[in-house]
Amino acid sequence: MDVRKFSVPEIILGQGSLKYAALCAKRLGAQKVFLVSDSGLERAGWVERIFGILEAEKLAWHYFNDVVANPRDHQVMEGAARYTRERCDVVMALGGGSPMDAAKGIAIVASNGGCIGDYEGANKIQRPLPPMVFMPSTAGSGADISQFAIITDTRRQVKMSIISRTLVPNISIIDPDVLTTKPNDLITAAAIDGLAHAIEAYVSKIAYSLTEMQSLKAIDLIIAYLPKALERRSMEALENLSTACTFAAMAFSNASLGLDHALAHSLGGKLDLAHGLIHPVLLPGVMRFNLPACRSKMAAIGEIVLGRRLEDDEQTAQAGIEKLTFFFNNLNISTALRDIVVDADALPQVCKMATQDACLITNPREATWEDILHICEASW
Amino acid sequence: MDVRKFSVPEIILGQGSLKYAALCAKRLGAQKVFLVSDSGLERAGWVERIFGILEAEKLAWHYFNDVVANPRDHQVMEGAARYTRERCDVVMALGGGSPMDAAKGIAIVASNGGCIGDYEGANKIQRPLPPMVFMPSTAGSGADISQFAIITDTRRQVKMSIISRTLVPNISIIDPDVLTTKPNDLITAAAIDGLAHAIEAYVSKIAYSLTEMQSLKAIDLIIAYLPKALERRSMEALENLSTACTFAAMAFSNASLGLDHALAHSLGGKLDLAHGLIHPVLLPGVMRFNLPACRSKMAAIGEIVLGRRLEDDEQTAQAGIEKLTFFFNNLNISTALRDIVVDADALPQVCKMATQDACLITNPREATWEDILHICEASW
Repeated sequence: MDVRKFSVPEIILGQGSLKYAALCAKRLGAQKVFLVSDSGLERAGWVERIFGILEAEKLAWHYFNDVVANPRDHQVMEGAARYTRERCDVVMALGGGSPMDAAKGIAIVASNGGCIGDYEGANKIQRPLPPMVFMPSTAGSGADISQFAIITDTRRQVKMSIISRTLVPNISIIDPDVLTTKPNDLITAAAIDGLAHAIEAYVSKIAYSLTEMQSLKAIDLIIAYLPKALERRSMEALENLSTACTFAAMAFSNASLGLDHALAHSLGGKLDLAHGLIHPVLLPGVMRFNLPACRSKMAAIGEIVLGRRLEDDEQTAQAGIEKLTFFFNNLNISTALRDIVVDADALPQVCKMATQDACLITNPREATWEDILHICEASW
Repeated sequence: MDVRKFSVPEIILGQGSLKYAALCAKRLGAQKVFLVSDSGLERAGWVERIFGILEAEKLAWHYFNDVVANPRDHQVMEGAARYTRERCDVVMALGGGSPMDAAKGIAIVASNGGCIGDYEGANKIQRPLPPMVFMPSTAGSGADISQFAIITDTRRQVKMSIISRTLVPNISIIDPDVLTTKPNDLITAAAIDGLAHAIEAYVSKIAYSLTEMQSLKAIDLIIAYLPKALERRSMEALENLSTACTFAAMAFSNASLGLDHALAHSLGGKLDLAHGLIHPVLLPGVMRFNLPACRSKMAAIGEIVLGRRLEDDEQTAQAGIEKLTFFFNNLNISTALRDIVVDADALPQVCKMATQDACLITNPREATWEDILHICEASW
């Protein structure tokens, strides 16, 4: 085994844990918190709730909500200017992947200067970031755990992957209560992102025992608890889903991802698609492509999805991929690329861009842009 | 589920990872490192190796080796005085549990003042500690991962459990190469400590999904790889043993321990016994005592130890405990208390002291000092 690095934030997990938000910020030296969230969480009353928690601890705050799904470079730059102008000292985010990634981008630019695009790729951040306390509002994105931030370069229409250990927040507060107010489609999209993290991290070239175990447990729990969470929103199901996606995030943050995410980033950047809905379309095809390079690992995934092993690795892996497609269809989400991409003419360029994404480096099988195009065609 | 906290250091794991020691210290702001180790590691050449790594990065250092097994309060106080006098700024430890616990004690007193005894119990440390970079030389103690430090109060002849999140080192560098020079008896004693961590954390009252999964994986790997590590010292076996004990440490640091450790601390403090050799004697009896309070969990442990499930939970659990005793005997370590305790008259006092240990709080079954004495008698 080569030398492996494992880094995760301090985690506070469980129903009601949001109440620790202000104490966590104070422990990190906060006097004025920069809070990033979005209008959906405002409407559900959670943003107001955080204001109250901060005020009860006599913490000043500045609120920033100029964030959309697939957060934009100019939003990050505006946020960083506001952070500096308002003399904030801790970055806090309440939201799904988009507000959390935007908050990471703001933290980078506020402390390191320049443009957010300067930090695209791995290990480009030189100076320390302000302390970060993140509170995920979905179970799935893993941005509260991971060393990744994904920001859209609006000029090039590409999602930039920014990867650095300094992007691991100091503290992640995971309160499954927040999930109770989320609509089913967002719960599903986020959890499937978590499932894709677990599967890609498991077969990653740099996976190792610590991350592999977390990946497998995440797959197991998401398959078991996502349907239950959608059906009844029981606290047990929501907690298990949160735990599962936390495992998946620990795994992918430390073992990285693969072709499915590389392509999801370039598709999402070009066509501004919902990230979580791209995986059901691409993942089965990517898994079939990767299978020859990691047969026994794909069989281990198949065994979890099927609940049993078939005659050999190949059969178990193939049947697992079939069952996964069936699982997606049962959730009423499309597994056909034509349902989310209007114009197939954009695909060659999208596939070429995917070969530039940092996630492709750890995919278990080498892939040219033509290979990726074949996967898209097979998933059409 | 109540709110749970999970905190682990940044981990660098793998053969050759020791070479990052100086870079890690520099990243934490080091100009002069306070290195704690012991004569065994000096003889094996590892201390010299670390000096070289520090010097290559132009880091000054002060070396402290006044540490014995079951480190003493006065050694901690002397170390803290030296740390301050030498104007060091990062604490580094290379060793098993004893040098690492001593280093934690030194870090506490150097930054918080007073006597080390002032910090006995949970959450008594107020001020931040100096940055800590720990390099474990055994797979088992988990002191490089955990928020525990165990220091002997020489006046009272008791091991004090000091528990605080600030005791989690900043960085743990786990290089299985260091294990190649350890004698078999130390490898065994440390790994069995790791096994006891995993078992006690798994049935702890505050265990939860994150820690439970790590516990079970640790039990599985230690049972599989300890005999292999002793037999051939293959890098694969040593890496798996290191990974297993890292899992066990993550679990116990965040879910705490139980009666076996409470009693091991009071026995060890009173009689200055090797910590790792106490578990084979006590653990089976403690597991039998705890069984009625956590039957299905004990069966899950039994299933791993046996490799299969028997007719019901009770039988699987009981047979697992039997097999564990058999496993210890096969390693040529005693499972009879009379082999390590000369004078049975000390036992009532030892059992009374065990009821004061912080580890007892999370034991799955309430235990009086008479209950604990019965366990000792049954293990005689």
